[in-house]
Amino acid sequence: MKPPLKIALAGLGTVGAGTLRLLRSNADLLAGRGGKRIVVGAVSARDRRKDRGVDLSAARWFADAAAMAVDPEIDVVVELIGGANGVALDVVKAALAHGKHVVTANKALMAHHGTELARLAEAKGVALAFEAAVAGGIPIMKTLREGLAANRIARVYGILNGTSNFILTTMRESRREFSEVLGEAQEVGYAEADPSFDIDGVDAAHKLAILTSVAFGTEVDFAGVYVEGIRHISALDIEYAAELGFRIKLLGLARPTEHGIEQRVHPCMVQRTTPIANVEGVFNAIMVEGDFCGRIMLQGRGAGAEPTASAVVADLLDIAAERRSPSFAVAARTLSALPASPMERHRGAYYIRLMVVDRPGVIADVAAALRDEQVSMEAMIQRGRSPTEAVPVVLTTHETEEAAMRRALARIADLSTVLEPPRMIRIESL
Amino acid sequence: MKPPLKIALAGLGTVGAGTLRLLRSNADLLAGRGGKRIVVGAVSARDRRKDRGVDLSAARWFADAAAMAVDPEIDVVVELIGGANGVALDVVKAALAHGKHVVTANKALMAHHGTELARLAEAKGVALAFEAAVAGGIPIMKTLREGLAANRIARVYGILNGTSNFILTTMRESRREFSEVLGEAQEVGYAEADPSFDIDGVDAAHKLAILTSVAFGTEVDFAGVYVEGIRHISALDIEYAAELGFRIKLLGLARPTEHGIEQRVHPCMVQRTTPIANVEGVFNAIMVEGDFCGRIMLQGRGAGAEPTASAVVADLLDIAAERRSPSFAVAARTLSALPASPMERHRGAYYIRLMVVDRPGVIADVAAALRDEQVSMEAMIQRGRSPTEAVPVVLTTHETEEAAMRRALARIADLSTVLEPPRMIRIESL
Repeated sequence: MKPPLKIALAGLGTVGAGTLRLLRSNADLLAGRGGKRIVVGAVSARDRRKDRGVDLSAARWFADAAAMAVDPEIDVVVELIGGANGVALDVVKAALAHGKHVVTANKALMAHHGTELARLAEAKGVALAFEAAVAGGIPIMKTLREGLAANRIARVYGILNGTSNFILTTMRESRREFSEVLGEAQEVGYAEADPSFDIDGVDAAHKLAILTSVAFGTEVDFAGVYVEGIRHISALDIEYAAELGFRIKLLGLARPTEHGIEQRVHPCMVQRTTPIANVEGVFNAIMVEGDFCGRIMLQGRGAGAEPTASAVVADLLDIAAERRSPSFAVAARTLSALPASPMERHRGAYYIRLMVVDRPGVIADVAAALRDEQVSMEAMIQRGRSPTEAVPVVLTTHETEEAAMRRALARIADLSTVLEPPRMIRIESL
Repeated sequence: MKPPLKIALAGLGTVGAGTLRLLRSNADLLAGRGGKRIVVGAVSARDRRKDRGVDLSAARWFADAAAMAVDPEIDVVVELIGGANGVALDVVKAALAHGKHVVTANKALMAHHGTELARLAEAKGVALAFEAAVAGGIPIMKTLREGLAANRIARVYGILNGTSNFILTTMRESRREFSEVLGEAQEVGYAEADPSFDIDGVDAAHKLAILTSVAFGTEVDFAGVYVEGIRHISALDIEYAAELGFRIKLLGLARPTEHGIEQRVHPCMVQRTTPIANVEGVFNAIMVEGDFCGRIMLQGRGAGAEPTASAVVADLLDIAAERRSPSFAVAARTLSALPASPMERHRGAYYIRLMVVDRPGVIADVAAALRDEQVSMEAMIQRGRSPTEAVPVVLTTHETEEAAMRRALARIADLSTVLEPPRMIRIESL
């Protein structure tokens, strides 16, 4: 057997501890599959005394992760600290600059600095792998980089945030409102105390920016992602979605358009019969549409210590077995800087819910506002009747440009008979 | 750029032509991802004059595929002839023996000779890749070999035959009988003129035998696969399945048990809410249950020229980029020869449908037969009443051993009040 692969772990939180457990419990299997043993030579974390349930006595302890990253005995630095900048960035840069392979689970880091770091890795001839950064245990990076590499990708989309999907699923199943379900998700640990990264779409946008680059060979452009979260989704909208044959999912979607690369994260109405609509709870799923493979969907757990460790160690096995593919599928120096397609140029169908005064002429005013912006109505539902309260009116449109839809919504919001700001959810044809 | 990868194509049927189309239409993209161009240096097929819609003038023509396989100018032989033996086997053996990499889409060949061929490839230090042999465009080989390689696999199962899944889906949706739907599938080209490989489970068993080896590190053991097809599934059973909350799917399932490796292909009753139950029509899907990744499902098109070409060329890109993993995830010489767990030792729940005389005491006789073999009944439905005709009685059992179930069924079949051979479908908890 070849000499072992010596790794250093920077960060010993949930994923770090999971990775140590995996390396220990599957050590023989990993040696068989990677052709050499994987040995944890060094570790670094904030608190040395904390009990992590794993024996760290054989590994050298570094208080300074950046110092560990350049240690000459280490082959691979595994960055599990997190955060787009700060220590994580320092550690990864130092490791790459010193010719160490890097494996990271850090989506924020890759979303913000992916292109630069991949170019640094390439210049140094080392691997920069980040399977764990996107969709946890689902090997989507390898699938795009290698498994489906023969294809020109037309579109990639998916459920990239388990917390949001859990909340939307539970809202639908229990017919409750967002804030109540969020509170419950926080109690059971599916949502964090500060849930904004998850429910405001930022986490999904980090992952989408990475996916986009691997799928289309473009520089990572997190700033180019249009982001909208799920806070404004109400039980009423979920009910109407069901009535119209849809489910509401927070999706990340990317594709090349004539205006550049379109990247967007927002709640979508998707046909209930599509595969992605049936991915429920904390599960993630990613659909890849290739010119030869057709539609390939992968689903599984997108977070958690064990699934994320599975991805981290898969990257380590590639390094152990000397299997290399460029971080973003093509040489980093050749990644193209395509413009971001502005959201105003997006074309699609829309679901609109208004709360209106229940009296004759209201629908005529709304219809006129749509007509004036050349937005074509597809269906309208006004079910409840009440002379004293606001009643919901739901509309769906044919495909139109987002800019026109926004102008029409501004007109509609100005109508005196429309009592609340209009709610708009994009209808996605998948 | 590095010198090109020179390939030879043996077999120019549907998949061969699809592969040529892919190599031409995505040539630039492939060069970017593989680091070198892929050039078709030679081709071989039965009929030279047939118009395949692709320009072959730049490739040398060989009437003898085995002679082409040993040509010194060729780096990789792509075997798309098909069949477990004969020319396909000769070509692959000759290529490997002469130190050529081999890519094949031939599931029968790999199911029958996989271990031997992988050992030959390993001895010669060349790649033997067969992504296209299992589930067409779904990159399940790479996923098991690399993407999920950190995991100990507890079970792998899936819908491995699109024709059978199409027939079962259509039977359910249209409430028609097997033979009628098969005829329709043959008309639209989803089933072959001789459909037995597909509908009798042989094709799925070939794929399962390959999957098993990659998942569990065992020698390929096609003979050890228990195989049962879908010919005996009736519209009545599909109706009862729906009533019980199930769908009927032809699955291939493999897992290690205390008696050895269990490999089986047969119709299964699966809960309608499981992800696999919702994979419909010609689609394939494979579920991998790993100790760290949890449940990962891949779905997509399992057949057709384009998806299969996507898989063939993915293998070529791995060779071009010098990414190598052992054919069956671990060194072929270390594949273990575990015994096949006999089907009689399988434990599971069962669905039984009987056609009985409608008179008092019939159920008591059936219940006594089950009791005498220690099979525990879970539910019973006898809905229709008819004094003159056979009426259906449906039973489900708790988990029991297959041997006991078979003995109980033999007793039941012997009852004078039971008018047709009992129908048995295994209930799978997924």
